[in-house]
Amino acid sequence: MAHLKQLKQRTRADYPYIREYRTRWSDNDMYNHMNNSIYNFLYDSVINTYLIENCGLRPASSPQYGMVVHSHNDYFSSISFPACAELALRVNRIGQSSVTYEIALFEKGQPAVKSVGEFVQVFVDRETGRPNPKGMCDEMRQGLERLLVPQAQSKI
Amino acid sequence: MAHLKQLKQRTRADYPYIREYRTRWSDNDMYNHMNNSIYNFLYDSVINTYLIENCGLRPASSPQYGMVVHSHNDYFSSISFPACAELALRVNRIGQSSVTYEIALFEKGQPAVKSVGEFVQVFVDRETGRPNPKGMCDEMRQGLERLLVPQAQSKI
Amino acid sequence: MAHLKQLKQRTRADYPYIREYRTRWSDNDMYNHMNNSIYNFLYDSVINTYLIENCGLRPASSPQYGMVVHSHNDYFSSISFPACAELALRVNRIGQSSVTYEIALFEKGQPAVKSVGEFVQVFVDRETGRPNPKGMCDEMRQGLERLLVPQAQSKI
Amino acid sequence: MAHLKQLKQRTRADYPYIREYRTRWSDNDMYNHMNNSIYNFLYDSVINTYLIENCGLRPASSPQYGMVVHSHNDYFSSISFPACAELALRVNRIGQSSVTYEIALFEKGQPAVKSVGEFVQVFVDRETGRPNPKGMCDEMRQGLERLLVPQAQSKI
Repeated sequence: MAHLKQLKQRTRADYPYIREYRTRWSDNDMYNHMNNSIYNFLYDSVINTYLIENCGLRPASSPQYGMVVHSHNDYFSSISFPACAELALRVNRIGQSSVTYEIALFEKGQPAVKSVGEFVQVFVDRETGRPNPKGMCDEMRQGLERLLVPQAQSKI
Repeated sequence: MAHLKQLKQRTRADYPYIREYRTRWSDNDMYNHMNNSIYNFLYDSVINTYLIENCGLRPASSPQYGMVVHSHNDYFSSISFPACAELALRVNRIGQSSVTYEIALFEKGQPAVKSVGEFVQVFVDRETGRPNPKGMCDEMRQGLERLLVPQAQSKI
Repeated sequence: MAHLKQLKQRTRADYPYIREYRTRWSDNDMYNHMNNSIYNFLYDSVINTYLIENCGLRPASSPQYGMVVHSHNDYFSSISFPACAELALRVNRIGQSSVTYEIALFEKGQPAVKSVGEFVQVFVDRETGRPNPKGMCDEMRQGLERLLVPQAQSKI
Repeated sequence: MAHLKQLKQRTRADYPYIREYRTRWSDNDMYNHMNNSIYNFLYDSVINTYLIENCGLRPASSPQYGMVVHSHNDYFSSISFPACAELALRVNRIGQSSVTYEIALFEKGQPAVKSVGEFVQVFVDRETGRPNPKGMCDEMRQGLERLLVPQAQSKI
C-alpha cells in the first residue's frame, strides 16, 4: 500500500503519459480554487484520451468499454483558474478485466504534485454490460501494459 | 473498516439527511449513464446544503470553511438522465478540525443503493488557510454531531 | 420580435411545462451566484426531459435527434446555491425540421423571472446527420405541438 | 448586424487573442459530440483569462467585476473529445459600463470555424452590485480597447 508520504513525493518522472489541460473559469468554486470534483473530470479525461489514442477505444462503438467501479483521491494543495494543469497517468495493476490507474495533477511551472488518485475500471462487453469471460481484449491490454509500473504499490 | 459488502446493503434509513436532485442532460456521458465525476458534484452539493442550512456556513464570508482533503467512492450500479437522484448524508467521524462524511446515492423509486463514498473535510481559517488551534467552531461541530452515527465504521 | 421588457414580465403561467432542479455547489462561480453557463445546462435538461417523457426521444437509439443550432439568453437577476430552480418550457415555433423553444428560469418561492432564453433545434437523421426531407417524425411533432403557444413572438 | 453568412466565414485572423483548451471526456454528450452548453463554459474561460492577464481583474477582490447580461451563439459544426479547441476573442463594442465580446471556437488543425457567439458583460461595483456612475475603471477599459475591432458589426 502506497503511503500518503510517498504519494506527496511523486514527480512527473513517475508517470509515462502527461497531457496539459487549461483550467476553465467554472472550475473554481466559491473558495476561489478548483473544486474537488473537477479533479475527477480531469482524471477521466486523461485516461480516456490515452485509451482512444493508444488502445483502440471508440467510445460510441467499441465492443468493450471501461466502467469506473472505484475512485479515490488525496488533495495536497490547490490550483486555481486560469492556471494550466498537467495530468499525469500510469497503470499500477492490470487484472483479467480490470485496470487500476494512478493519476497525478501538477500545475504547469511548479514542481510539487497537487493531488494523486486512483481509478479502477472494469472492461465490460457493450452488449451485456458484463465482463467478458476471456477478459479485456488484446489491443486494450497491450496498450495498458505500456503504462504499467512494475513494482507499483496501489493505495487500494 | 466498512467492507464493500456492508456498503452495498446501505438503505435510506442509514442516513439522517436526504435531498433530491434531478439529473441533468449533461450528467450522462457517451455510455448513456451518469458520469462517475458527477457523483462527486452531488456529494459536494448535499454536504454543503446541510452545512449552510444547519451549521451556519456562509461560503463567501464565514471565518472558517471546509477543504476536501480526501475522497473515495464505490460505484455499484448506474443511474441515467432524466431520473431523480436522492443524496443521503451522515457523519462517520468528527475530529478536532476534520469531519468524515459518508454519502450514498439512490434513485427515486428504487430501493438498492447506487454508490457509497466518503469525503474528508478539514476546516481552516479563511485568513490563514490553516486549521485553527482550537479546531472547528462550535456551531459547526454541533451541526455535524446531529448527523453522527455513533458506531459508524469508516472505510478509510 | 419579443422585446426585453415583455420577457421580464414572464410568469410561470406563460409556460405549460415546469420542472424543479435543485442547484449544485459547483453551479456558483467565484462571484457566489450561478454561473451563466449553467443556465444552458438547465435549459437543455428541461427540453430533453420533455422530449424523452412526451415525444418518444431515446437519446441512444431514436432514428432522429435534435441538434442545437442557435441559443440566446437574457439574464435579469441572479440565483445562488443552494436555492431550487424551476425551469419552465414552451414552444414558440415549429418548422419542418426545426423547433424554437423558449425557456425561463424561476427561483422556487419567488415570483419574478430570473432569465429567459431560446434554443433552436434541428432534428436530423441519426444515420446521415442531416434533416430528413420529410421533416421531423410525427410523434415528435405531436409532442412539441402540445407546448406550442400560438401567437408567440420569438426574439430571434 | 453581422449576418450568419459572414459569421461562418470567420477565421483566426479576425481575432487578436487565442487560447487553446483541451476538451474533456465529460464535454461530449450522449450524441458523442461536445454539448452546446460547454461552448459557453469555454467562452467564459477565454474572456476571463484575458481579463485577469491583461485588465487587472482579480475575481475575488477587484472593486468591479463583469456580469453577463446577454449571450447568444450560433453552432455551425461539431467538435468531439479528445480534440483540442482554440478559443478566439475580440471586442465588438465598448460602452460606458458594458462590453460586447465576440468569441469563436475552432478545432486545432482545422480551418473552418465551429461556432461564433457574443457575450455582453456589464461591470458593476462589488459593493453595490450596480454599475458605477463613472463607468468601468480605466485599466479595464484600456485592456478591452486592445481587443476592439473598430468597424465590427455586432449581431445583437
